[in-house]
Amino acid sequence: MRLRLDLAYLGTRFEGWQAQEGTRPARTVQGEVEAALGKLYGSKLRIHGAGRTDSGVHANGQVAHFDTPENGPAIPAHGLSRGLNAALPEDVRVTGVVEAAPDWHARFAATGKIYRYRLRRGEWLHPHLGQVEALAGEHLDVPSMRDAAARLVGRRDFARFALTGSDPGTTVRTLSRLSVDEEGSLLVITAVGEGFLRGMVRRLVGTLRDVGRGHVRSADALERPGRTALARGLTLERVLYGSE
Amino acid sequence: MRLRLDLAYLGTRFEGWQAQEGTRPARTVQGEVEAALGKLYGSKLRIHGAGRTDSGVHANGQVAHFDTPENGPAIPAHGLSRGLNAALPEDVRVTGVVEAAPDWHARFAATGKIYRYRLRRGEWLHPHLGQVEALAGEHLDVPSMRDAAARLVGRRDFARFALTGSDPGTTVRTLSRLSVDEEGSLLVITAVGEGFLRGMVRRLVGTLRDVGRGHVRSADALERPGRTALARGLTLERVLYGSE
Repeated sequence: MRLRLDLAYLGTRFEGWQAQEGTRPARTVQGEVEAALGKLYGSKLRIHGAGRTDSGVHANGQVAHFDTPENGPAIPAHGLSRGLNAALPEDVRVTGVVEAAPDWHARFAATGKIYRYRLRRGEWLHPHLGQVEALAGEHLDVPSMRDAAARLVGRRDFARFALTGSDPGTTVRTLSRLSVDEEGSLLVITAVGEGFLRGMVRRLVGTLRDVGRGHVRSADALERPGRTALARGLTLERVLYGSE
Repeated sequence: MRLRLDLAYLGTRFEGWQAQEGTRPARTVQGEVEAALGKLYGSKLRIHGAGRTDSGVHANGQVAHFDTPENGPAIPAHGLSRGLNAALPEDVRVTGVVEAAPDWHARFAATGKIYRYRLRRGEWLHPHLGQVEALAGEHLDVPSMRDAAARLVGRRDFARFALTGSDPGTTVRTLSRLSVDEEGSLLVITAVGEGFLRGMVRRLVGTLRDVGRGHVRSADALERPGRTALARGLTLERVLYGSE
C-alpha cells in the first residue's frame, strides 16, 4: 500500500532533505523519517520526497510517499502518524498520513510549490521564532523590490539563478508568483512555481534584497542576480497537486 | 552608571536564569549575559534579574540591571545592545538597554509579572513554534477551567502551589488575574500577580489542566492543586514597574 506523508520540520539542525550514504552519514530529514519507519515496520524502507530542501531550509508542508512492506505489520494511518511522531526527533513532525493511489508519486505528481522567505527588519531575531527568519539590518525599499519581483515573474530561463552545474536539462522555469508582503517588521517573500532550480528561490530573494538596498536597479534584476540568501529564512510552505 | 537590560530567551537549552558556581557550571541565562558583558567591559560584572526563571522556562520580557565599571570603557546604550547581541548565543537576545536611576533595582522595583502558558491541543507540536508550547492530547473542558481560574484569583495562601521548602517567609500572594483564552487549537493561560512562589505558575496551570480533563472539580481547585505543568510551555512575558 502506498501512503502519503505530510511533514513539517525545522531545518536548522538538518543537512537538508536527502539521505546520504557514507562513513559519516549526515543528519537529514529523509534519513530520520526512514529510521523511524524502520522501527515501526521492522525493515528498511525508502521514502520519496516532493523536493529536496537544502541544508538549513525549513518545511511546513513537505510531502513524501512510501510503500508499506508486503509482509510488514498492518498499521492504520492514525497509528502510523502517532508512532512516527513518537519515534522521530522533535524537529520533524508527521502532520498527516493518507493512503495514495499505487502509482501516485510525491514528486512527479506535484504541479507546483509554494516557498516563503521571512526577512526580519531590525537588529535581532527573536529567540522564539527567529530560527525560521533571516535578519535584514539595512533599510529596504519595498516598492522597488515589488517592481523587481513583477519583472521576474513569468516563463524564463533562470540559469543565472541556479547553483552552477546543479541541474541537468533545461533551465527554463515558470515563476507564477513572486510577492513581497509586509507584516509589521517582517517582510515575507512568497515564490510560487511549478518547479525551481536548485538554489533559485534563495537567489531570487537575494536579488530582491539587493534591489531593496539599492545595489541593483529593479529593471536589471533578471540580468544581474544578487547574492544567495541564507537558508535559515526559507520555508517550503506547500506542495501543490492536481489543479491546485 | 546603572543600566536596565530587557531580555528575551528560549529557555530550552538553559538550566534556568540563575548563574551557578561549581566544578561543572550549568548553562544559565545570567551566566551567558555576564560572560558577554565581561567581553565588552573587560571585567567580571554581576547582573540582577527581576525573577529567576526555572530550567526550561522562556522569556519575552525579562528585566535585569547592572552597574557599568567605573574605569571601564564608556559604551553608549545602542552600541551595548549591538555588542551584547553579537557576543551572546542566539537563544538569548538583548531587546533593550536604557539608563536607570542609581538606586533602581530590577527585582525590588518590580510591581508585578505577567506569565503566559501555551498549551497546544492536538497530537503534535509544530517544530517551528513548538519549543514554547506544551502538548495537551486530552480533551479539555474550557468553561470548567475558567470557573476554577476565577476561584483561584485573589489574595490567598498559595503554600500548596509552591515547591516545598523553596520560599522562606509568607506564602500569601495576590493573584490578580488568571485567564484561559482560546486561539484556535492553542490554549493560552495568563497569570498576573505582584509575585509568585517558586513553581506556582506551573502548578496553577497543572491544576487548571486537571480540572479541564475532569480529574478535579473546579470548586476544589484551591484545596487540591494538580500536577506541575512542564516548563516548556511557560514564558515570562513582562515585568511590571510603577503603576503599570
